[in-house]
Amino acid sequence: MSGNSIGVLFKVTTWGESHGPATGAVVEGCPPGIDLEEEDIQKALNRRRPGRIASSSPRKEEDAVKILSGTFQGKTTGTPISLIIHNTNVDSSAYEDIKDIFRPGHGDFTYFKKYGIRDYRGGGRASGRETAARVAAGVVAGKIISREGMEVIAYTKSLGGIAIKLENMEAQEITRENIGESRLMCPDADAAEKMEAKLEEARRIGDSLGGIVEIIVRGCPAGLGDPVFDKMDADLAKALMSIGTVKGVEIGAGFTVAEMAGSEANDPITTDGFLSNHAGGILAGITTGEEIVIRIACKPIPSISKVQKSIDVQGMPVELSIKGRHDVSVIPRIIPVCEAMANIVLADHLLRQKAIV
Amino acid sequence: MSGNSIGVLFKVTTWGESHGPATGAVVEGCPPGIDLEEEDIQKALNRRRPGRIASSSPRKEEDAVKILSGTFQGKTTGTPISLIIHNTNVDSSAYEDIKDIFRPGHGDFTYFKKYGIRDYRGGGRASGRETAARVAAGVVAGKIISREGMEVIAYTKSLGGIAIKLENMEAQEITRENIGESRLMCPDADAAEKMEAKLEEARRIGDSLGGIVEIIVRGCPAGLGDPVFDKMDADLAKALMSIGTVKGVEIGAGFTVAEMAGSEANDPITTDGFLSNHAGGILAGITTGEEIVIRIACKPIPSISKVQKSIDVQGMPVELSIKGRHDVSVIPRIIPVCEAMANIVLADHLLRQKAIV
Amino acid sequence: MSGNSIGVLFKVTTWGESHGPATGAVVEGCPPGIDLEEEDIQKALNRRRPGRIASSSPRKEEDAVKILSGTFQGKTTGTPISLIIHNTNVDSSAYEDIKDIFRPGHGDFTYFKKYGIRDYRGGGRASGRETAARVAAGVVAGKIISREGMEVIAYTKSLGGIAIKLENMEAQEITRENIGESRLMCPDADAAEKMEAKLEEARRIGDSLGGIVEIIVRGCPAGLGDPVFDKMDADLAKALMSIGTVKGVEIGAGFTVAEMAGSEANDPITTDGFLSNHAGGILAGITTGEEIVIRIACKPIPSISKVQKSIDVQGMPVELSIKGRHDVSVIPRIIPVCEAMANIVLADHLLRQKAIV
Amino acid sequence: MSGNSIGVLFKVTTWGESHGPATGAVVEGCPPGIDLEEEDIQKALNRRRPGRIASSSPRKEEDAVKILSGTFQGKTTGTPISLIIHNTNVDSSAYEDIKDIFRPGHGDFTYFKKYGIRDYRGGGRASGRETAARVAAGVVAGKIISREGMEVIAYTKSLGGIAIKLENMEAQEITRENIGESRLMCPDADAAEKMEAKLEEARRIGDSLGGIVEIIVRGCPAGLGDPVFDKMDADLAKALMSIGTVKGVEIGAGFTVAEMAGSEANDPITTDGFLSNHAGGILAGITTGEEIVIRIACKPIPSISKVQKSIDVQGMPVELSIKGRHDVSVIPRIIPVCEAMANIVLADHLLRQKAIV
Repeated sequence: MSGNSIGVLFKVTTWGESHGPATGAVVEGCPPGIDLEEEDIQKALNRRRPGRIASSSPRKEEDAVKILSGTFQGKTTGTPISLIIHNTNVDSSAYEDIKDIFRPGHGDFTYFKKYGIRDYRGGGRASGRETAARVAAGVVAGKIISREGMEVIAYTKSLGGIAIKLENMEAQEITRENIGESRLMCPDADAAEKMEAKLEEARRIGDSLGGIVEIIVRGCPAGLGDPVFDKMDADLAKALMSIGTVKGVEIGAGFTVAEMAGSEANDPITTDGFLSNHAGGILAGITTGEEIVIRIACKPIPSISKVQKSIDVQGMPVELSIKGRHDVSVIPRIIPVCEAMANIVLADHLLRQKAIV
Repeated sequence: MSGNSIGVLFKVTTWGESHGPATGAVVEGCPPGIDLEEEDIQKALNRRRPGRIASSSPRKEEDAVKILSGTFQGKTTGTPISLIIHNTNVDSSAYEDIKDIFRPGHGDFTYFKKYGIRDYRGGGRASGRETAARVAAGVVAGKIISREGMEVIAYTKSLGGIAIKLENMEAQEITRENIGESRLMCPDADAAEKMEAKLEEARRIGDSLGGIVEIIVRGCPAGLGDPVFDKMDADLAKALMSIGTVKGVEIGAGFTVAEMAGSEANDPITTDGFLSNHAGGILAGITTGEEIVIRIACKPIPSISKVQKSIDVQGMPVELSIKGRHDVSVIPRIIPVCEAMANIVLADHLLRQKAIV
Repeated sequence: MSGNSIGVLFKVTTWGESHGPATGAVVEGCPPGIDLEEEDIQKALNRRRPGRIASSSPRKEEDAVKILSGTFQGKTTGTPISLIIHNTNVDSSAYEDIKDIFRPGHGDFTYFKKYGIRDYRGGGRASGRETAARVAAGVVAGKIISREGMEVIAYTKSLGGIAIKLENMEAQEITRENIGESRLMCPDADAAEKMEAKLEEARRIGDSLGGIVEIIVRGCPAGLGDPVFDKMDADLAKALMSIGTVKGVEIGAGFTVAEMAGSEANDPITTDGFLSNHAGGILAGITTGEEIVIRIACKPIPSISKVQKSIDVQGMPVELSIKGRHDVSVIPRIIPVCEAMANIVLADHLLRQKAIV
Repeated sequence: MSGNSIGVLFKVTTWGESHGPATGAVVEGCPPGIDLEEEDIQKALNRRRPGRIASSSPRKEEDAVKILSGTFQGKTTGTPISLIIHNTNVDSSAYEDIKDIFRPGHGDFTYFKKYGIRDYRGGGRASGRETAARVAAGVVAGKIISREGMEVIAYTKSLGGIAIKLENMEAQEITRENIGESRLMCPDADAAEKMEAKLEEARRIGDSLGGIVEIIVRGCPAGLGDPVFDKMDADLAKALMSIGTVKGVEIGAGFTVAEMAGSEANDPITTDGFLSNHAGGILAGITTGEEIVIRIACKPIPSISKVQKSIDVQGMPVELSIKGRHDVSVIPRIIPVCEAMANIVLADHLLRQKAIV
């Protein structure tokens, strides 16, 4: 495997560079008979599109998806679903000035070391552009798991050091509604306002911000996942860590378990289910039936206009300032990508479980 | 795939339950001509063995490994290396009392939900016992990467809330030596002393402790890993999260990137290499040539003698106190397992890179 | 895996139905730096195109290929190569009359049993149309193996019961030249003439013909292939048997070995190589360095205008005569497909061997 | 993958050399709750054991199998089933004389070219010994498919040029009974007698014989297999061609289709099923519900006492006569191996189909 696929039975293979003619995904293993139209996918792609927030990328990504195979009369047929998104509005000229320079924080240097080739037109396969294909594929996965009552919700938990506070929120819980009302996909309106100010400040000084996204899976039955290498949490960790921006993944109580005693960390089991959910819905790699709770750490976008030190292809030192108006944070654009990756892992394990029982 | 394998070209498949006759691993993809004797593997298994620390498991795991195939005259042949560890000293009687009870924090409940079967003799495939096979396989992987000058070192970074302090240490750096001198594999002698006291206290009250392990890879060349799903960090995250105790994985600056600005998080590149290593040695999924730095969060061992609430197979509420002297923490026993998993991922990507260039 | 991919390191995934908007392939694992232009692929597709022979399919398949990713400035980059062939000239109206009927010899019945869906517009994934994607991908594979001096040649060995005779041929050997001169890709001009007459006769009476194709690999080094399941001959057999028309595969002496004595079948080894090649270039699944020789049996095309018995979707008996001018034989159109499949298997094993030595 | 596994959901990985301490298989994907005892497997291994026929191998292979994991209280648990067969009675001394010589017809030469290593103790992984692990694993597969009413029967169709004649047989059909009564697993008693004489003659002159085995699958439902690369016939072809002795595989009418007209080869469909079965139970890679019929060509055993030409490791010419009393034909010992491989492929596709519907 050349690393372009994820999943065993529900499998997604993506292809395409940021500045090539198109990007796409081949989605295998989707059962026949599921309603699937281009507009279902388009809606998800629109959520990922730049321009949601003021300080967003100037590149107008149309992201118009086409279904090239795998459906007939609006339903899946069981055969591979080929999805294509043409790269309109591709302008590589912005990269001409830095074509020989390795941008810090990007994959330019490592890509060159791996392949011995410098495709200077953006990030190639490591570009955020590739995630459009994931989002498209994730819609198909989402249809499979929603048939079983599962739902994945992701939202901005913190941005630039500002975290939401459940107790400040009217609803005191995370819902699709209170996330959806927010431009930043942040359910706490107060926090969202402060985040916006932080973003504006960062944009002003030519810098960028990181943050934390939480992904919640509701309605997942007990019994999905494997007890050894393909643990549900291991597969979710891989899927989410495979998003370029992610530097950390934690499940349930996550890193805080390191300071807990067993009597605190263990979730007592009762006839009504678990009394707590430090496990984050997964025990021994298999789902418990409780909410699956995952958090990821997103690094600040590496493209900043502040001057940075680097080297060029010849190994000579350079200083660079990345021009153009880039996104200031991958949040909230990364959120549909997180949902897509969780959808894909869940759909795969759901199908795998079918072959067991 | 049934989830018992990891790796593409260097592939490890483990088998065996905690209380069956044996556990083992089949190691595929090891190139021919590498020196490999049983004693090489035995040494690593001994590091994982209970009894290193006072408050350790009473089960005397002999863990005597045998090589059943794949070597000839002390060298690998290129064919699958079958490793077997017989489960001597297996006594399932301790489980008789709780044979119908789902132990909190263990996989008993989820395992039952997945397979519809209650194998009450310990944790089955989800048992810590399975990690012996990983350690054995990891030795083979370690031989492959050490030929290229790579080395994986893991150590106790914190335990029960007590963290090491580099500035307190004479060496002011992590070395195999200062880790090796410590029973807890903790390079800071002061911290180690406090950890011991904490462990003793937890043992006394019948509780357990969690902690953080850091894994460092030295000597890794730039260019290993893939830019999309099989990113080096994604594969490391999966490999480490597949260890039962792990609830979080972070790379380089990890979760702290969430509060950084891009100008801080980006590692400037100079003619002498990177000026900092927030990336933890991986950019866009591909190694940079700097140290790879990973931290994992380990939950407290769920088997505690403190009374806990749970239910039995019939769904009736019960209270249980897990008898016997169990380990108080997976640290330091988990450390050789972490090293093994990192070895395996690195060996796999090293071989994969050979097919590219 | 959903069965749409072939290969481990050099991997081809195809997608697309016969009457959807397009068909294509994602080619993974191609090393960077190999010259690859659309016209290289187009040439191979043109060899597969109907219309080579008089009695060929009326559907004018333009088969214009586009490279959507994986190349930069005319060279491969090491990333997945996405190839697309738009289905122009698609007219499903011919299928309207038989939309509820299972055509004998086709996959209509089994497809329906598998997926519970009747996509009546041609053969779906089982259509010969899918092989265009294989041919396109095979060109990439061919570039990889030709760098190592390997070449795959396939030709018509028999058609409608008429077999070539080496002793009748001037060259007395199979060359790209004497195959290329023939419309039927048959190196024996005499035999070719008789085959043409047979085809014409079959066409006249609304019937179709089968035949045998031989595939020869020249320049293959010793040492490729695996000694157990992924034997070179096993992988070739699968690759070729996965072409819809193929009902038998044999290597070297093939089925005639069943009547040989060991002293006859064994190929003596000398300082100048093997004295004979009953093994067909493969021993214990690994190449010997001699020519690899494979023969496949192609069944007659099942679409015939002669009246046939069948049933419809409701299980009622029907009689049908398939209208339109269909190909009379898959030969010679299948020949580039055979070459492509052999190329793919060889390229995969070549890359796999790189990771071993 | 290193080529030691077969199957996607039902997956078998074998390990072990002919003259190492043991050989074995790890069987993954077996659903929980299936009765499985060592004696079930032992019975199949005994059918494969040498000594069934007079002119058989002198090596007394005890082939006593042990189940090391994956069962509890006589039932499968859903976890990997590890099977081990210790190589008792291993005597490598017979190989001392030929330790530097490449035996014609064996993998010695190619193995050396692949791995650069000469493990002269028998055939290593390419040894017939490895098939014991396949037979053991095949029993597990057989249990899965027999739950669905499927059964695989293989028998000797021809040996040394002598073929069975259905019309000569009382039953006029192939049954487990008339096969089982025959030492050669040949249902035609007349033919069997002639085969015995042929074998005796070959043994006398120090030569060996080939033959043809037919494998029939009864009770297979329609709908198993995939329409593209993982066609049922393609996977069967690979599985069977991966047996060292096999030089050809054909399905249904096989190579005879090459001389048929479409009107003859097509199997008319009626309300009572197919009127004929030239397709051999598979159309477009998917089972039709009719009997699956496969034939394989087995080459004569390459170990003969007749003098042969070869070279040694240094490339110098030698003459050799292989000593000891070797089998004269792989038939009938290969027959349980063929059944095992068919079982494995069918079990895998059965489980895969579960994830589709």
